[in-house]
Amino acid sequence: MKRIAIFPGSFDPFTVGHEEIVKRALPLFDKIIIAVGYNSVKHGFFTPEQRINWIAEVFKNEPKIETASYTGLTVDFCKEKNAKYILRGLRTAADFEYERAVGQMNREIYDEIETVFLLTSPQYSMVSSTIVREILRYGGDVSKFIPQGIDGYKDL
Amino acid sequence: MKRIAIFPGSFDPFTVGHEEIVKRALPLFDKIIIAVGYNSVKHGFFTPEQRINWIAEVFKNEPKIETASYTGLTVDFCKEKNAKYILRGLRTAADFEYERAVGQMNREIYDEIETVFLLTSPQYSMVSSTIVREILRYGGDVSKFIPQGIDGYKDL
Amino acid sequence: MKRIAIFPGSFDPFTVGHEEIVKRALPLFDKIIIAVGYNSVKHGFFTPEQRINWIAEVFKNEPKIETASYTGLTVDFCKEKNAKYILRGLRTAADFEYERAVGQMNREIYDEIETVFLLTSPQYSMVSSTIVREILRYGGDVSKFIPQGIDGYKDL
Amino acid sequence: MKRIAIFPGSFDPFTVGHEEIVKRALPLFDKIIIAVGYNSVKHGFFTPEQRINWIAEVFKNEPKIETASYTGLTVDFCKEKNAKYILRGLRTAADFEYERAVGQMNREIYDEIETVFLLTSPQYSMVSSTIVREILRYGGDVSKFIPQGIDGYKDL
Amino acid sequence: MKRIAIFPGSFDPFTVGHEEIVKRALPLFDKIIIAVGYNSVKHGFFTPEQRINWIAEVFKNEPKIETASYTGLTVDFCKEKNAKYILRGLRTAADFEYERAVGQMNREIYDEIETVFLLTSPQYSMVSSTIVREILRYGGDVSKFIPQGIDGYKDL
Amino acid sequence: MKRIAIFPGSFDPFTVGHEEIVKRALPLFDKIIIAVGYNSVKHGFFTPEQRINWIAEVFKNEPKIETASYTGLTVDFCKEKNAKYILRGLRTAADFEYERAVGQMNREIYDEIETVFLLTSPQYSMVSSTIVREILRYGGDVSKFIPQGIDGYKDL
Repeated sequence: MKRIAIFPGSFDPFTVGHEEIVKRALPLFDKIIIAVGYNSVKHGFFTPEQRINWIAEVFKNEPKIETASYTGLTVDFCKEKNAKYILRGLRTAADFEYERAVGQMNREIYDEIETVFLLTSPQYSMVSSTIVREILRYGGDVSKFIPQGIDGYKDL
Repeated sequence: MKRIAIFPGSFDPFTVGHEEIVKRALPLFDKIIIAVGYNSVKHGFFTPEQRINWIAEVFKNEPKIETASYTGLTVDFCKEKNAKYILRGLRTAADFEYERAVGQMNREIYDEIETVFLLTSPQYSMVSSTIVREILRYGGDVSKFIPQGIDGYKDL
Repeated sequence: MKRIAIFPGSFDPFTVGHEEIVKRALPLFDKIIIAVGYNSVKHGFFTPEQRINWIAEVFKNEPKIETASYTGLTVDFCKEKNAKYILRGLRTAADFEYERAVGQMNREIYDEIETVFLLTSPQYSMVSSTIVREILRYGGDVSKFIPQGIDGYKDL
Repeated sequence: MKRIAIFPGSFDPFTVGHEEIVKRALPLFDKIIIAVGYNSVKHGFFTPEQRINWIAEVFKNEPKIETASYTGLTVDFCKEKNAKYILRGLRTAADFEYERAVGQMNREIYDEIETVFLLTSPQYSMVSSTIVREILRYGGDVSKFIPQGIDGYKDL
Repeated sequence: MKRIAIFPGSFDPFTVGHEEIVKRALPLFDKIIIAVGYNSVKHGFFTPEQRINWIAEVFKNEPKIETASYTGLTVDFCKEKNAKYILRGLRTAADFEYERAVGQMNREIYDEIETVFLLTSPQYSMVSSTIVREILRYGGDVSKFIPQGIDGYKDL
Repeated sequence: MKRIAIFPGSFDPFTVGHEEIVKRALPLFDKIIIAVGYNSVKHGFFTPEQRINWIAEVFKNEPKIETASYTGLTVDFCKEKNAKYILRGLRTAADFEYERAVGQMNREIYDEIETVFLLTSPQYSMVSSTIVREILRYGGDVSKFIPQGIDGYKDL
């Protein structure tokens, strides 16, 4: 059976920290679906389309990676895609406590799902989409926090 | 002197985790007032009336339990009810740090108040009203996270 | 039924932080047994007898407080004393994580036991028996960290 | 070269906890600029002008302290003021994890900046602007959490 | 290429928490080597041989699982076994901080190694070898914390 | 008045993480005394003399840095050296909780002392003397974790 993982997030925007987790997880799975979760009520900084296009651009030469967007519960999207794994990166103890609650809840709802965690590398441990947006808002340079191949954000 | 405790929260909605803390705390107190704190500005998912009615239904056979709603500072409500104890459940280290600040602040304001903490049982440690609302929003099944006897939320 | 609590610890030595938790917990219980847990292999800084005598001296005018020593599992001692509550103070998030594991384990072993936590007051949050012993070892003055009425440690 | 530090924050309002950190940091720096960061979109509880006036009043006799307001990235404001240090107080582990991400990010953006942390004293560890605003909203007394010399908030 | 993982630990003794992590990780790997790390200086509660025999007994019908013992650095043992993955379970934020340091250090020493984390299930989150040994020391019953199939510890 | 800081630790051995904190703190102080604390009972991996010699070698061209060893309470050594500051690096939330207790205790004992914290850089956040000793014990290569100029440890 193929090992399919969902890498869910809002990715608003996708950062070098996200990119690294996906690349390091590639040997572990047969397919990774990077899934932009969006919310029809709360609008993001970038549109779901922009976010997906940028992610697709980053991994265009990687056949094991797909991109998608979804709304609703992550576990429902996993079922739809026949994915048994959710991939997440861990940076801090606060991250961990949040991820534990979500991961345990996901198993309560769908007991075949397994969340697999990798450690974010130290040099990316301070990068978050929230801080990147904050820098963008004030016209700062975020190029070192965004994967190479993404540059549409520069038109802001 | 009677040992009266307030169990304050937004309870939006009341979960099996809340229910368990109240039940386990019952032998320790002579009366527990489950108090729905609400805010006239921020609207909840359920109305304060719905929340109180559901809680009252859960504990309708328990004479030591009262339900109430309040707005304003929790310590002011404690004084009004002549309660010297605030009851709270603890799930995570993040919970603890938040509760410590609130508990110490409450003693700064009203030095006769004591916050008493019980540990949430492991099997409920991932349940939170926030996650339950999230599941409800997307039409998921939350029946295992809500006390038996509450089912009005199914009409959503 | 009487509400009997065990306040277990090594109390090597008993500090102002311990004293405060006991005093604040008094109205909640009908009896509190301060129980010095010792280990026949690892020797403490003070003997169990010294520790118990000092604690007894501090609370000599408080009829609801007893002192005792025990070896073995805390829950076994609770059964022996017919105590349904274990009292503990919480200072830090690290304390909490340790206490949660112990408290949940105690319930796994003996499901009628309930651990009740109070918050250590901010001014005592840095006091620990470990640091007090460290200061004593180097001849420092610990009088502000030890309850009034205890002074045998000065003969060191 | 003069040691200039920025003490940035929203200070909505400035508390006794903030005041203490500044006073204790004074011997370490030649100048401390207390800088009210504001956001043209999100409105605070008090206006930036009120906040600055109150801070200036508290430190009116302290020649090493300046007050300012800024919008945009803190590191850009540091460059503008020729400040190489950012001063911050630490209360809790959650504070620390947040401050670490911000501090490391600031060095990624501007590698000459150094964040210097002092520990908030235990007696102020539960004071936060958020809780003070909450008490003010419900007409509670916050005078013990606000520095002497500030009283304009009483006109609310 | 086969996905080989090492599940390292002192396993003194192997608990139901360890057992669960291995079982849940099985679909993710082609082989899992449960490796008892020992130290020629510090003696454990059980001998490495006892620990390995018990683990082998638990998984005797699982062809993808091997058992081994090692001394020295875990990454050196990984190289010897041609394993690119280290498997670990996460229970608490304190666990996480420790595991992060070890995991990042392992990558510093051997950059082809990847640590993969799964969440311990809530019902096992309080189980640790340390607490099990403590209970054994005082003659308590640990049968619910030890995998079925292991019972040699009862001869203590 | 000169700003004199003590950088206390066991430094068994001194790592690149320690080196970085001292270098980054240099502009903030007029003198930094790197002080090897030792304990006449517990023997370290390296002798206090080895540790001091290595530290002195690393900073031999830095006139603002002195090295020393001490036994006893750190605050007593600060008084002896007329130092009003203790310098410490922070890596993790667990570090922080420990450092907070020690720092607050030091102020309880000697209220003129101030602990100043800097953040360890992400790339050194996993380095600790404990892990370095562990690698040395098994003959691993620690050269990237030890400052340039120290190489006596290679003779082990």
